[in-house]
Amino acid sequence: MIGTAEKYLERVKDFRPRAFVGGEQVGNLLTDPNTRPIINTVAKTYDLACDPKYQDIMTAESPLTGERVSRLNHLAGSLDDLELRLELTRLMTQTTGTCCGRCGGCSGLNTVAAMTYAMKLDGKGEYHDRFMDFLKYIHQGDLSCNAATTSPKGDRSRSPKEQDPDLYLRVIEKRKDGIVLRGAKAHQTNAIGVDEMIVYPGLFNKGEEDYAVACAVPNSSPGLTYFLQYNSDDAERRAAEDISVLGNPLYGGRQTMLVVYEDVFVPWERVFMCGEVEYTKVCAQAARRTHIFNEGPCKAGFGDLILGAAIFLAESNGLETEPHIVEDLVKIIAANETTYATAVVAARRGSDIPSGSGIYFADERFSVLSKLNANDGFFEVMKAAADVAGGLLVTMPSENELKDPEKSALLLKYLKGRSDIPTDQRMRMFKFLNHYVASSHAAQAWIGGGAPYHLRMALYEGTDMDEKKELARALAFGCEQPNEG
Amino acid sequence: MIGTAEKYLERVKDFRPRAFVGGEQVGNLLTDPNTRPIINTVAKTYDLACDPKYQDIMTAESPLTGERVSRLNHLAGSLDDLELRLELTRLMTQTTGTCCGRCGGCSGLNTVAAMTYAMKLDGKGEYHDRFMDFLKYIHQGDLSCNAATTSPKGDRSRSPKEQDPDLYLRVIEKRKDGIVLRGAKAHQTNAIGVDEMIVYPGLFNKGEEDYAVACAVPNSSPGLTYFLQYNSDDAERRAAEDISVLGNPLYGGRQTMLVVYEDVFVPWERVFMCGEVEYTKVCAQAARRTHIFNEGPCKAGFGDLILGAAIFLAESNGLETEPHIVEDLVKIIAANETTYATAVVAARRGSDIPSGSGIYFADERFSVLSKLNANDGFFEVMKAAADVAGGLLVTMPSENELKDPEKSALLLKYLKGRSDIPTDQRMRMFKFLNHYVASSHAAQAWIGGGAPYHLRMALYEGTDMDEKKELARALAFGCEQPNEG
Amino acid sequence: MIGTAEKYLERVKDFRPRAFVGGEQVGNLLTDPNTRPIINTVAKTYDLACDPKYQDIMTAESPLTGERVSRLNHLAGSLDDLELRLELTRLMTQTTGTCCGRCGGCSGLNTVAAMTYAMKLDGKGEYHDRFMDFLKYIHQGDLSCNAATTSPKGDRSRSPKEQDPDLYLRVIEKRKDGIVLRGAKAHQTNAIGVDEMIVYPGLFNKGEEDYAVACAVPNSSPGLTYFLQYNSDDAERRAAEDISVLGNPLYGGRQTMLVVYEDVFVPWERVFMCGEVEYTKVCAQAARRTHIFNEGPCKAGFGDLILGAAIFLAESNGLETEPHIVEDLVKIIAANETTYATAVVAARRGSDIPSGSGIYFADERFSVLSKLNANDGFFEVMKAAADVAGGLLVTMPSENELKDPEKSALLLKYLKGRSDIPTDQRMRMFKFLNHYVASSHAAQAWIGGGAPYHLRMALYEGTDMDEKKELARALAFGCEQPNEG
Amino acid sequence: MIGTAEKYLERVKDFRPRAFVGGEQVGNLLTDPNTRPIINTVAKTYDLACDPKYQDIMTAESPLTGERVSRLNHLAGSLDDLELRLELTRLMTQTTGTCCGRCGGCSGLNTVAAMTYAMKLDGKGEYHDRFMDFLKYIHQGDLSCNAATTSPKGDRSRSPKEQDPDLYLRVIEKRKDGIVLRGAKAHQTNAIGVDEMIVYPGLFNKGEEDYAVACAVPNSSPGLTYFLQYNSDDAERRAAEDISVLGNPLYGGRQTMLVVYEDVFVPWERVFMCGEVEYTKVCAQAARRTHIFNEGPCKAGFGDLILGAAIFLAESNGLETEPHIVEDLVKIIAANETTYATAVVAARRGSDIPSGSGIYFADERFSVLSKLNANDGFFEVMKAAADVAGGLLVTMPSENELKDPEKSALLLKYLKGRSDIPTDQRMRMFKFLNHYVASSHAAQAWIGGGAPYHLRMALYEGTDMDEKKELARALAFGCEQPNEG
Repeated sequence: MIGTAEKYLERVKDFRPRAFVGGEQVGNLLTDPNTRPIINTVAKTYDLACDPKYQDIMTAESPLTGERVSRLNHLAGSLDDLELRLELTRLMTQTTGTCCGRCGGCSGLNTVAAMTYAMKLDGKGEYHDRFMDFLKYIHQGDLSCNAATTSPKGDRSRSPKEQDPDLYLRVIEKRKDGIVLRGAKAHQTNAIGVDEMIVYPGLFNKGEEDYAVACAVPNSSPGLTYFLQYNSDDAERRAAEDISVLGNPLYGGRQTMLVVYEDVFVPWERVFMCGEVEYTKVCAQAARRTHIFNEGPCKAGFGDLILGAAIFLAESNGLETEPHIVEDLVKIIAANETTYATAVVAARRGSDIPSGSGIYFADERFSVLSKLNANDGFFEVMKAAADVAGGLLVTMPSENELKDPEKSALLLKYLKGRSDIPTDQRMRMFKFLNHYVASSHAAQAWIGGGAPYHLRMALYEGTDMDEKKELARALAFGCEQPNEG
Repeated sequence: MIGTAEKYLERVKDFRPRAFVGGEQVGNLLTDPNTRPIINTVAKTYDLACDPKYQDIMTAESPLTGERVSRLNHLAGSLDDLELRLELTRLMTQTTGTCCGRCGGCSGLNTVAAMTYAMKLDGKGEYHDRFMDFLKYIHQGDLSCNAATTSPKGDRSRSPKEQDPDLYLRVIEKRKDGIVLRGAKAHQTNAIGVDEMIVYPGLFNKGEEDYAVACAVPNSSPGLTYFLQYNSDDAERRAAEDISVLGNPLYGGRQTMLVVYEDVFVPWERVFMCGEVEYTKVCAQAARRTHIFNEGPCKAGFGDLILGAAIFLAESNGLETEPHIVEDLVKIIAANETTYATAVVAARRGSDIPSGSGIYFADERFSVLSKLNANDGFFEVMKAAADVAGGLLVTMPSENELKDPEKSALLLKYLKGRSDIPTDQRMRMFKFLNHYVASSHAAQAWIGGGAPYHLRMALYEGTDMDEKKELARALAFGCEQPNEG
Repeated sequence: MIGTAEKYLERVKDFRPRAFVGGEQVGNLLTDPNTRPIINTVAKTYDLACDPKYQDIMTAESPLTGERVSRLNHLAGSLDDLELRLELTRLMTQTTGTCCGRCGGCSGLNTVAAMTYAMKLDGKGEYHDRFMDFLKYIHQGDLSCNAATTSPKGDRSRSPKEQDPDLYLRVIEKRKDGIVLRGAKAHQTNAIGVDEMIVYPGLFNKGEEDYAVACAVPNSSPGLTYFLQYNSDDAERRAAEDISVLGNPLYGGRQTMLVVYEDVFVPWERVFMCGEVEYTKVCAQAARRTHIFNEGPCKAGFGDLILGAAIFLAESNGLETEPHIVEDLVKIIAANETTYATAVVAARRGSDIPSGSGIYFADERFSVLSKLNANDGFFEVMKAAADVAGGLLVTMPSENELKDPEKSALLLKYLKGRSDIPTDQRMRMFKFLNHYVASSHAAQAWIGGGAPYHLRMALYEGTDMDEKKELARALAFGCEQPNEG
Repeated sequence: MIGTAEKYLERVKDFRPRAFVGGEQVGNLLTDPNTRPIINTVAKTYDLACDPKYQDIMTAESPLTGERVSRLNHLAGSLDDLELRLELTRLMTQTTGTCCGRCGGCSGLNTVAAMTYAMKLDGKGEYHDRFMDFLKYIHQGDLSCNAATTSPKGDRSRSPKEQDPDLYLRVIEKRKDGIVLRGAKAHQTNAIGVDEMIVYPGLFNKGEEDYAVACAVPNSSPGLTYFLQYNSDDAERRAAEDISVLGNPLYGGRQTMLVVYEDVFVPWERVFMCGEVEYTKVCAQAARRTHIFNEGPCKAGFGDLILGAAIFLAESNGLETEPHIVEDLVKIIAANETTYATAVVAARRGSDIPSGSGIYFADERFSVLSKLNANDGFFEVMKAAADVAGGLLVTMPSENELKDPEKSALLLKYLKGRSDIPTDQRMRMFKFLNHYVASSHAAQAWIGGGAPYHLRMALYEGTDMDEKKELARALAFGCEQPNEG
């Protein structure tokens, strides 16, 4: 049964994570200013899923329970499922203006499903059975998940064993009833606000078995510490008395965190890989084909919001028909839709992993290409939006000044734009756009989902170079006229 | 029944166009060096259609004859048809390295079909009936067509009536048995080598009825004069004693021509519009949704050839594993596939014009976006390929020097690359790549299909700005917490 | 005599501006967290001027007092002066990481000098005499100035008189002893921290005489209200208990403000233009040739800091020799130095305004070109720096966590990079880089100094198109062989 | 004494090179269609030098003869000399639309001067003395030189000794009276048309002494064979009956050639290095600082021609005031002037090699940066020019058609643009622009002067990274307030 925001918020009350933000300890997730936007965003995933208008996009039928469940918990069973998932991603960023973290959870569930299925094909079926039991539990409660993928890694020129071994999350003990984990996972969006973290490994080699671990770890498990990111806008929110003057009042910016595992126990029924390094390759490939696939539509959704704000401000500046302003708006549209289109083709050209499993993943080449297009595109979006908006994008005083009548009178007089657009709305929209194009957003967009270099190399390796070479040879070397007719 | 190259070449023997190239009159189309590549390219469309391997891509079932016919003569009846058509376009450029012109013809047939259907819906069914009869005739012979769309236009700051009225093709006389045309159409690829030219108008307004004309004009009709383009590579080909030393020996470069109409008579049964200016709008829209749609996949096909040649030369230079060379190859791949992906989505998001007609056209926004991506992408491809190839791309002596043993010995010694790649093959591939990246190709790619400015404006006008503005407003202005849980 | 930071700080104690930031009133400029960085930055201009190492760059000899004075108060008397000024600008951003505001003041002084000189040439010498007296006063005290140039403007599609007339700063009364100003000036960097604001107009036409006003307004003049900008990093700083965890601890980000003039009185001896609309053209041109000229070197200085931080982080990541990382660093260098080089040529190709005045201004074309290069370059710098740094650039927890030993132990363990680089320094540098590439900096860089569109049009209008056309004609049309030898 | 075109053409009559082009042997340099443009271009260097208007740019006083001599034969003795040299380069491309080859010769003379001076400082003064004697001979006759720098190199993954040893030009015999050379030099512009080739080596290591050779080789020396490049426009020119219909009628495109040395004897008095591998490093550095320095201004000159042609065609299309066309023209201007400005700073920041020698070279970083800017810039120029011109840029028929009255009437009617611009001039200008933006020019611009990768690495290695790191550290780590005032 599809979960509701109400039930989710009930569960949140039981989350008791040891967490820190800005040097302070997080008390109540529902009231701490930096965690509340996380909760709002996850709650929104439930609200939209319950909205009949978005049934197709937001939900799917679970083959495990026979009931509809959030698409974010669904194993893609077809190319259509993949295409709907990217619509979900764009819809989520359009409606929250931030990252819900559950797209990562969805990637994690699908990745682990494929990885354990591959082991099953080789006769090690226990992991897959455990995972499907776990997934059924998720479906029954329509619980929320995120992904725990990236270890801190320390010095990249050294392997895990050439430095502090804990810089990659690892199994330090195998007990009869389960395993004990030590290390950390970085850059985890919304980890503190989801029911379960889906842990899965990067690529590891023989001799690095301790690092080849996949499992599910519930929120607030003993031994976990959450260190929340702390950018300027996190600090601004923490200090704000009135969130309505913030850029994205309800949902804020993407909230990532470093999650430290100090000897966290995980029972065997939640362990989906433990030492099988040879399967980290299929895991890495599946992850790339699902997680990177999300990145593009996500940025297109942000781009939609930026486009909307830019149009608003162009109008309020009285410049919306100026040719150079129109060209700027075109640049935003082009960037958004190119990113989106590449992702659609990633879905349409998808296939199941392992072959025959029925668990569908987007095409790798188009997935990474969509993300690469998003990267460059987002910077073009920023430039164009800054162009359209003009100086107040950066130099606007606080909307808090409006609370005093005398100051308000001055600001509403001097920050006025086109006469039919209320000045306070104009100020609001400047701050909103500022949140996206004069902030950490572009850097996040660039880095999120992994180093662009690795994406480029994946594109290269996925291309059949010999086929292309043959096409050129055929024309360059073949020289007989068809016939003389 | 699917046409064959043999039958086509038979028909070509009867073409007797009045045509000029490089200052000389074209005699025999099959032997003139500048027209033979046109014939080869069109013949190749028939050869591939007869190849069982390409049945799906190259042919479709005609609803008019019940037999398979070239997809280039097919009215798209579904989104799948559109997607297969773009595969056809990419395949054609991959296998001929040039433009067959018939993609334009296909656009013309579909455009006129939609336009006449629109008139039929308004009670003027005669045009559509005529057109369907004509189309049946095309299908029966599987004849080849191209499109005649762009009048010379003269001074763009003046309308047709503010300058020499013939600068836009127009009807100068309506007779009982047909109409008489005067004027010209420019940039017509391969017109001299196809059976029929499909003439259709641009956008015209009330008072410009004479210009609103669509019809079919057979090759070599009395009153036609063909002036072939004459770039350096056309001159090189004209002068060549041995075509095997040319860049693309069999198929050459895209061959366009200016076709002048000196009072050309067209019987009524071949006239599909005559004065109905109010329907030029649907015509222009349909044209943009089908002709521009072809442009992207076409460039991706060229890009495939360039990629193949670049890999070959990287290997022959001994540099194929250098990181900066790999990055260059990635740039080519990324450009090709981004263009392609945008076109795929144009197909997938297509719809019929007029609604209910069952004649399918690609989505306009993604069509123009694909072309815009192709434009910038192709220049990135050029840079990357030049980088990979190095100086001989431009500075290589003629392969004709190899015909003399003494000169050959020197050149094979001093132009040698990696020892296992024959030097003459290396030279061949340099010339091949030169044909694409040190030629008029990039400029063609940029300009072909219409001014980029108009494409950008189409992207702008096709975007629902209010929807985007609402998304931004919802987040910026809406500020109630979901609920307190 | 060159001013000192000490004397400046003494003067600051007497500043009593009515000012607001983040909804609160500014009390003491030396202790308010958002104004102290302004004071530090201006103080630094004095400190560097007193440093013998920077004498040539930071100071010049005043022809009015015969003593050395800050170059920021100097009328450029030669091309060398212009070149040294751009070195000053780059040095200031390199050493403060922000904008001192006095470059604008310097532009204002030079602009008003040229404008009044132009009036003097036409027989209206009084304004110039007044200005030179004022300048002598500035030189005697080596006072600090900024520029007040941009009125809020409201709806850009309307002229000043078609909307609230106060949206452009204007003279509302001319008295015997002076004038009264009403309106506002926006985007004024550091206005609250300098001794004098140099007010000068944009371009105005006949009938808009009230807006053609130039004058000097001392800090804290009665009737002024300062509304400070309030971005996320301003909020972060306002809330911070310990500034050492901020991105640029001492100097912060560029601090702009909206300065409202509620009937501010200016005595005639400080009025340098009052109604002479015909001279606003020379004023606008001079302003563009001096203020825009500063923008490029300023961004090169920021780029130097970003480059330094990127190298540090590349090393701490153990990736500084990876080819793709090196290519990223090259992109930063190329952007910085291209911007810088274009500005150097702007200086070298400068000339005096009006001709014969001996008041030198940079070349307009190269000035705007430097700024345009800076705009695009800065976004390339951002991408490259984000690439080099990786995810912690955005996802790092607050350094405040390090103050607790238990949390510190965890963070220093898990955020460790290369073993010989202290982890707290690594965290420090991530935050520092975050301040520049995950903030409002890029948007500021893009917008600051005026709309790029107007810069592009200035480049166009400054180019002699006929000369270029002649070059093409000479080669295309002229066809006689030199001689037959 | 400054040479004249007349004397040069006299000398050319004595050149008897063994040369091939397009498979044919070159007979008379003055009448062969592919060599005549070379002669015209070199002759133009003399004509301009004799024009009093260009005295400063085109000539300099020889310290060896006390008379004025072509600046192309001058050792730069100051920064002003460097700046004038770049003006010369831009002027030459503006007035010939192609490469004179002598800029390379000038680089060669300066490079060899510095290299031999370095040897002299180490006590091996004989080479320098010989070189200065040779240079005096050049100055006395004001002879023309080009540079012979790049060996074919074969497989780049192998060193000279790991493959056919002749793939790098080498000394195969040292005789009493001189040395014998075997091998080849590639990409040599205009070699066949200059009096002397200045041969100098790339970078070589111990054990590769045979390759470390510098010398001067006169035109047509026994054992030399010249293989001229053969692109499409070379073929077009070879076949043309009337050169006035070619893109750049008199001067054509850049003409490079492969020059093969089959045991060419060079007497000792013309040998400037023979085996001193340790000095190839200073040679390579000097070469980079002079030859690459020429590349940027050269491309700015081409860009000027393209800009001029684009303006002409914009006007003839009636579109010169359209905003998007103006933006295109701005792009061309911006690219040209950015390239130029970076080169100016390379000149202004130059220094002598070796220090104290008084032989001035441009700064390396700004030289390579100018070239890198030219590379990307030139492709932007191409796009913009294609945009402005439109389809006839590629699809225009031959101007030869105009020679027949009937055809001429049709073409002049249908290719007409704005009424006051003669249609034949319009056609002429389309062909002229086609020569630059629909040809091998862009690829040449990209590749000429060496692989961009190596330029990027030179920029990297020339940057003081520690200095930048210190700037960042100072701000990030230093946190004491200036003082409390």
